[in-house]
Amino acid sequence: MATRVAVDAMGGDDAPDVIVEGALLALRNSPAPLQVVLYGQASGLQRILPEGGSRSILIVDAPEVIGMGDPPVAAVRSKTQSSIHVGLRDHRRGRTDAFLSAGNTGATVAASLFILGRLPGVARPTLPSYYPTTRGVCLLLDVGSNMDSKAEHLLQFGQMGAAYCRLLMGMDNPRVGLLSVGEEPGKGNELVKAANGLFARAQNVHFVGNVEGRDILHHGADVVVCDGFVGNVILKLGESIMTALPALARQEIGRLGMDVAVATSIERIFEGVAAKFNPEEYGGGAPLLGIDGTVFIMHGRSTARAVERCILMAARAAALNMSQSITAELTPHAGR
Amino acid sequence: MATRVAVDAMGGDDAPDVIVEGALLALRNSPAPLQVVLYGQASGLQRILPEGGSRSILIVDAPEVIGMGDPPVAAVRSKTQSSIHVGLRDHRRGRTDAFLSAGNTGATVAASLFILGRLPGVARPTLPSYYPTTRGVCLLLDVGSNMDSKAEHLLQFGQMGAAYCRLLMGMDNPRVGLLSVGEEPGKGNELVKAANGLFARAQNVHFVGNVEGRDILHHGADVVVCDGFVGNVILKLGESIMTALPALARQEIGRLGMDVAVATSIERIFEGVAAKFNPEEYGGGAPLLGIDGTVFIMHGRSTARAVERCILMAARAAALNMSQSITAELTPHAGR
Repeated sequence: MATRVAVDAMGGDDAPDVIVEGALLALRNSPAPLQVVLYGQASGLQRILPEGGSRSILIVDAPEVIGMGDPPVAAVRSKTQSSIHVGLRDHRRGRTDAFLSAGNTGATVAASLFILGRLPGVARPTLPSYYPTTRGVCLLLDVGSNMDSKAEHLLQFGQMGAAYCRLLMGMDNPRVGLLSVGEEPGKGNELVKAANGLFARAQNVHFVGNVEGRDILHHGADVVVCDGFVGNVILKLGESIMTALPALARQEIGRLGMDVAVATSIERIFEGVAAKFNPEEYGGGAPLLGIDGTVFIMHGRSTARAVERCILMAARAAALNMSQSITAELTPHAGR
Repeated sequence: MATRVAVDAMGGDDAPDVIVEGALLALRNSPAPLQVVLYGQASGLQRILPEGGSRSILIVDAPEVIGMGDPPVAAVRSKTQSSIHVGLRDHRRGRTDAFLSAGNTGATVAASLFILGRLPGVARPTLPSYYPTTRGVCLLLDVGSNMDSKAEHLLQFGQMGAAYCRLLMGMDNPRVGLLSVGEEPGKGNELVKAANGLFARAQNVHFVGNVEGRDILHHGADVVVCDGFVGNVILKLGESIMTALPALARQEIGRLGMDVAVATSIERIFEGVAAKFNPEEYGGGAPLLGIDGTVFIMHGRSTARAVERCILMAARAAALNMSQSITAELTPHAGR
């Protein structure tokens, strides 16, 4: 039977065109049987779809649209016929195997929590992000869904991140590091010092101790754990390297007075390096871990290629039963 | 009368040679009358100094040495005859106008607090750092002396940082931003949301609102305020860009198969850009703001040129009466 992936066709800066294009690419290139279900304003989607769809690509009407700039909590409360709501409700009922959106991240996270709920034992679902390193990529989490985390939350972030890396990123025994200001267990703020103790005592995680800011780009760990405030700042700082680097390079080229041919080659290199800091490079989207369902969240600027990759990733996550694997890894939260 | 700058001759990875060399450079190039007082093991220093010193460069014996790896608090308690202790005690007595060290940062901060104390109204002294931007450099603070800050502390960090920028970095009306996860005042963790309210109500600071991680490199503010945990992570992440960039560039050059001449040019550019993330580029050292005295802290790897620049900066800070200017800027701390 085909894996059924639900896609929010209205979410993302270039929706619905780019989303539909990505869905068609995924159907063409999927290594396993796949069905895509598009959620959105049906009349518009039918006009875009070649011949209005087929058995492998369905349209489910959702009349309301949550905009990228809508306040998440208010939108989740008021626009209950949005593509996010209708898609998540169908996912909860088992009509689809995974749901993904490139739309309003805050609204998708809030609606997922509200409609799907948490996995048993999970205190806080978490959104990770991929971060480029000199040896590939690491998983950074949380990157913004949890401000003011507790130590127990950080431990679960590490366990959920490791489960995801093992299951979907082909890592045997992912090394989990706790982001702090020094390697010693006693270094850090109160949150991180407490979390270090929990990680050190946890049996089911390959904890490599504290990692520092300088260790991230040098791949000090496969999974880097921090609270959502710190992770969000680091994530956006990393994304800005992509745009700041070419500007800094141009200044340096000007200072050294290099000729045009060399300058052009250099700009290509800088673009290549800068592209590593483009979140689309890695799998197209990230899973919302700890939710009772399979939800992937994409960047609002996702290209059709990124949408394709995320659909295929979400299909694999569903086929491999990611949620069940995550539940098995956890140190259950005591409910504090 | 000459400005008298006290220098910890034993602090730093290449002390005392590099420190002495930097002191001699400063004396040669100072635009105003200057006297340098070296604190350290006198016999060793006399051997290094040409002809054992002069009226403009004095040696004060301090038999003990605090190592770069010594635990700060223990070292401050036990090694009371260290160059840091003897130098700070002389500074407190008014025998020198400024003190600077490239040694153990934690020990220098702790000893400064213990020996000099805080300025009236200051809750927490703070250590800033310079951060490269596409338009020059911004001041990031705190970068590690204050874990678990309170909102009132962040407000004072911003005020002290702005005073420093105005006095010593030639900025008329420095724009102060609060680091958060979104521009809206309601975005962030509890600490930052509370601090946003304090900044918005403060009369004596040019507050431009929240800035995000992506705004730092693009110079979203002249002064970027955060707690010491976040600042330390960001500072070290920035420093690691310096070492990670050339590695990422080499990978990209290899992938594109460029010829050797182009590759060499490119490596020069990358080194130039990477150097912007070298903390020595900016003034050689940063002031410990909020201390009742004039204390500058340098990087352990400082070169003689960086030591020279920091001595001249500290001399200017003392001549301009930096501490008094800072006191005038503050919203006094209520003592919570």
